[in-house]
Amino acid sequence: MTSEIRPVSDADWPGVWPVIHDVIKAEETFPYDPSMPESVARDMWIERPPGLTVVAADGAEILGTAKMGTNRPGPGAHVSTASFMVARQARGRGVGTALCRYAVAWARQQGYASMQFNAVVETNTAAVSLYRREGFQVIGTVPRSFRHPAHGRVGLHVMYLEFDPPS
Amino acid sequence: MTSEIRPVSDADWPGVWPVIHDVIKAEETFPYDPSMPESVARDMWIERPPGLTVVAADGAEILGTAKMGTNRPGPGAHVSTASFMVARQARGRGVGTALCRYAVAWARQQGYASMQFNAVVETNTAAVSLYRREGFQVIGTVPRSFRHPAHGRVGLHVMYLEFDPPS
Repeated sequence: MTSEIRPVSDADWPGVWPVIHDVIKAEETFPYDPSMPESVARDMWIERPPGLTVVAADGAEILGTAKMGTNRPGPGAHVSTASFMVARQARGRGVGTALCRYAVAWARQQGYASMQFNAVVETNTAAVSLYRREGFQVIGTVPRSFRHPAHGRVGLHVMYLEFDPPS
Repeated sequence: MTSEIRPVSDADWPGVWPVIHDVIKAEETFPYDPSMPESVARDMWIERPPGLTVVAADGAEILGTAKMGTNRPGPGAHVSTASFMVARQARGRGVGTALCRYAVAWARQQGYASMQFNAVVETNTAAVSLYRREGFQVIGTVPRSFRHPAHGRVGLHVMYLEFDPPS
């Protein structure tokens, strides 16, 4: 992959929104409202500090995007989370892996102890395999909790990577 | 228990807020910001339709409160969730059980297929036991993901009850 990953800028949004729109309309991988208006999507996807939103870009072309931040406040604030979306035309080229590695490195650097994904669709095998390769484990699977347009009600994995687990 | 459970009204809030404030300040049972201002707490706890917030009250005394609604939007919208808080002086009297049963009955009536609790502190054995008695299962436990003031980093259970699981 010759793309770079960098913090999103206002100028990137017109390239980011079609990626998000395509993903949420498909209803295959994210439990998001598929009719989410662009302004709501922007507010949802663009993190404020201490969170971060990035793009994977090849020149002006947006290949993918990720957001990362704190999973839960207060007593849960040492656990990070992240979400990734890759443009349809850029899939299978390692963009997701690069974004995932970027997010984990960022979270480690920010001092988080771990990263949790709260709802990984079990039929999204590209994502599940990617996360497993990066060291994430399936903590559990909530059965039939995601309505997939082709597969019906499928499970959502909770996945987790502890950066320096006690031995 | 001689109390009644009913939808929260504006007049209840002055009795509800001390319950919430006490629970979140303790940092033992909810991954909420313990310094959450009252206005933010009110906005967070009082659900808008199709969600619902109720109180368990004995006359004018607020014994506990619960909120219930949709766990995730879009393809996850058939799964409900709920949260419960019981006033310190009212614990051990079945208020939590009554609120949990109310929420499950409400969710069934609303047409949800299941109820999920996303983050049950594993050392909160009163809650875990109550949910198990009501039929909830632990789907998985995210280790060390909640910083407990006395017990250190403890796990958060994902718990789940499917109302009419396929046989």
